[in-house]
Amino acid sequence: MKNIRRTVRFAGIAALLLTTVASTASPPSPSAVELAQKGDDPAWAITEGLTTEVGPRQAATDAEAAARRWALTRLTQMGFQNVREEPFMMQTWVRGDEEASLIGPFQPQKLHIAALGNSASTGTKGIDGDIVYFASYDALVAAPDAAVKGKIVFIDHQMKAAQDGSGYGQYGRARFTGPNVAAKKGAIATVIRSIGTDNHRVPHTGGTNFDAGVKPIPAGALSNPDADQLVRQWQRTQATGAASGANPAPLRMKLLLTPRNLGQQRSGNVIAEVSGSDPAASPVIIACHLDSWDLGTGAIDDAAGCGIITAAAKHVMTAGQPRRTIRLLWAGAEEVGVFGGKAYFDAHGKEKHAVAMESDFGADRVWRVDFKLPDSAKALSDRIALAVAPFGVTRGAHPAGGGADVGALIEAGTPAIDLQQDGTRYFDLHHTPDDTLDKVDPVQLRQNVVAWTATLAILANSSDAELP
Amino acid sequence: MKNIRRTVRFAGIAALLLTTVASTASPPSPSAVELAQKGDDPAWAITEGLTTEVGPRQAATDAEAAARRWALTRLTQMGFQNVREEPFMMQTWVRGDEEASLIGPFQPQKLHIAALGNSASTGTKGIDGDIVYFASYDALVAAPDAAVKGKIVFIDHQMKAAQDGSGYGQYGRARFTGPNVAAKKGAIATVIRSIGTDNHRVPHTGGTNFDAGVKPIPAGALSNPDADQLVRQWQRTQATGAASGANPAPLRMKLLLTPRNLGQQRSGNVIAEVSGSDPAASPVIIACHLDSWDLGTGAIDDAAGCGIITAAAKHVMTAGQPRRTIRLLWAGAEEVGVFGGKAYFDAHGKEKHAVAMESDFGADRVWRVDFKLPDSAKALSDRIALAVAPFGVTRGAHPAGGGADVGALIEAGTPAIDLQQDGTRYFDLHHTPDDTLDKVDPVQLRQNVVAWTATLAILANSSDAELP
Repeated sequence: MKNIRRTVRFAGIAALLLTTVASTASPPSPSAVELAQKGDDPAWAITEGLTTEVGPRQAATDAEAAARRWALTRLTQMGFQNVREEPFMMQTWVRGDEEASLIGPFQPQKLHIAALGNSASTGTKGIDGDIVYFASYDALVAAPDAAVKGKIVFIDHQMKAAQDGSGYGQYGRARFTGPNVAAKKGAIATVIRSIGTDNHRVPHTGGTNFDAGVKPIPAGALSNPDADQLVRQWQRTQATGAASGANPAPLRMKLLLTPRNLGQQRSGNVIAEVSGSDPAASPVIIACHLDSWDLGTGAIDDAAGCGIITAAAKHVMTAGQPRRTIRLLWAGAEEVGVFGGKAYFDAHGKEKHAVAMESDFGADRVWRVDFKLPDSAKALSDRIALAVAPFGVTRGAHPAGGGADVGALIEAGTPAIDLQQDGTRYFDLHHTPDDTLDKVDPVQLRQNVVAWTATLAILANSSDAELP
Repeated sequence: MKNIRRTVRFAGIAALLLTTVASTASPPSPSAVELAQKGDDPAWAITEGLTTEVGPRQAATDAEAAARRWALTRLTQMGFQNVREEPFMMQTWVRGDEEASLIGPFQPQKLHIAALGNSASTGTKGIDGDIVYFASYDALVAAPDAAVKGKIVFIDHQMKAAQDGSGYGQYGRARFTGPNVAAKKGAIATVIRSIGTDNHRVPHTGGTNFDAGVKPIPAGALSNPDADQLVRQWQRTQATGAASGANPAPLRMKLLLTPRNLGQQRSGNVIAEVSGSDPAASPVIIACHLDSWDLGTGAIDDAAGCGIITAAAKHVMTAGQPRRTIRLLWAGAEEVGVFGGKAYFDAHGKEKHAVAMESDFGADRVWRVDFKLPDSAKALSDRIALAVAPFGVTRGAHPAGGGADVGALIEAGTPAIDLQQDGTRYFDLHHTPDDTLDKVDPVQLRQNVVAWTATLAILANSSDAELP
């Protein structure tokens, strides 16, 4: 009950503030936040439309090109200005066939596996090998080469669901560079426990990277139930070996992964703007990514993010022309190496941006706002914190980090604000076939839009003294 | 709190009763129920072992043969008597490749599909077709042939999770006979929404049946998120058609299913006994099924059932030789047509059985006990109801139906008792790749064993006056 009383009190203050902020619009019109709270929900329409009509849209494929066409049409229909594609070329890797089985010493069983981005191919005949188990990435790093050479390395981890998504950085190393470490030690392939927190037969894909000079090896992720099965069989072979005093019977795997590199292919960023009334003012840039991994329809990653930022910009635009231009970046090719973010920075990095934000952590509620702003923006950040408080968003103590697609801008000094989403469910779905529309909760999606709209309305009307 | 008070009161009465029941064992030894409540849990060991060391075990395949060998070894090791295999031959259908895509009028998208048992093959090149949507099995039945002929029929349904699993009978008709109805109307294939209540990309397989004289057509089940996607695309084509005044653009599907019929193959029942002290007394038969569908490891369907009945029999045996023989039937080939149950009835149907029970509805808690007993067993049923009440089991008002594998016995007049399990989660997992060990809750599994042990201890020591 305490929280409800707090919310009511903050709501009064925030309503006052929002009235002030919205004073550039004609008084009888609803404020941007009122528009976000009621009526149409462009965020849902975009999320539903993109995932239904295009579906999976891996970077630099025909599907991503279809997604860009879809985006250009939709953003134009919605009344945005300067809607355009900014193409770029990129190295492109695509999935092939994928099969894995445990073939001994127990009854053969098929496992659910997905190749990791940049995995090598096993060839069409596949490979057989003995598994060597590592409980963690660190255990693999510490292992002598002799323990790994000629084996199929399995890397386990202990990631748990967390609101802030913590754990992905630490445990994700098994995917990010585990295969590279194993390749350097002479492994013939690497199979990891999916970097995910669910218990469904849906593997989590994602990119892996090999150092220059390291020959890539086949690399895949097992679903969590399949990883559990492998671990149980491994423990049995070890226990049986220990009980008999002999070497444990090898745990055998058959692996077939036939991904291909297609060389340089075309991807692109889609950009749209709400033109500000003051052409001299630096723009606010808000980002999401249009591409998705190929296994799901990319609903939470990141159609919803595009829906959220676009709905917020639309509501601010409808409430009245803002002072600053709002630039929307629907980035291409985030998943496979942030090529869109890099291309944007190459083209626009020298332009002044007032502040950068990104939505790319699903569609569950915003619970915290973080800032990384110049000292001149102290009062601005207070106004934003008060404006989002009624919607259950607390102020964080740490600096904003921004999202991947605006990472280069922030690195170069652009101020940033994060509206942190509840990531408790995020790694149940991330990069899996299960990233589909039904996982998006329309109520929480709208809360995102309201928090974004409240923030964006303030930012887009901020003064040059606050955000140069 | 009311429930807790009730439980405490019943616990006292039940403890009294159980002491009486266990009086055939030497007094200082723990009762069968005490054994079930504490210490080893053979139900978990069986469920874990069978799913780990054998995994999927479709009827009449090498995997089911491996499962029978596993079962014979385990049941012998546990100290049961008359452990044996009773083989039989059966028509055998096996899955091949399976792919489905929505290919127009939108960007092509892959769907997750599983062939239904007895599906015909599309051939290795697959087929393309226009989809026609039916909201229910009844809508398909009502449709004129002209609406179906030459089309790929999609059958939707509205099944919801329920503790008693109700809905499966009604909505399951889409799978049981939907393809048969569609084939008779001239459809080229049938695709159904999985008969399941989850929202994961895991299709639910299961058998379908074609009438004699009806040529089978390809038939598969889409996962629920894939069915949602198909429905959204279908609705868009209809709405666009209606808006334009023209015929809707056809929704196109490409389908590849290459199952094969292997003819007559060997399956078998595994049988074991706790020999009773009175050879003239009719035995209690308790059943589960050893086979599983091929997509998961058959943890809830039905390794857990075999674990539950076997643990209960083991605890009764350990507590002291019962008066009646307890016969365990680990039936083969339940999923694909109850061939094991039929073979048991052919071999043993003329023998007198005191009462039949089966565990085949997952591993979640028992919440109700149902009886179908002769009038002479009124006091017996009261004793059982009181004995299971402390464990949260209430007495039902409807007659017991028994399980599939003892169905023929019950049909022929054998008394039956059902310990009804909570099926709320059951159709999230049933016949999917997700039927894996991690879905079994050890605490609820043990509650099953305790309720079964309490029941079985009473039944196995019942008099001929109560159960002739």
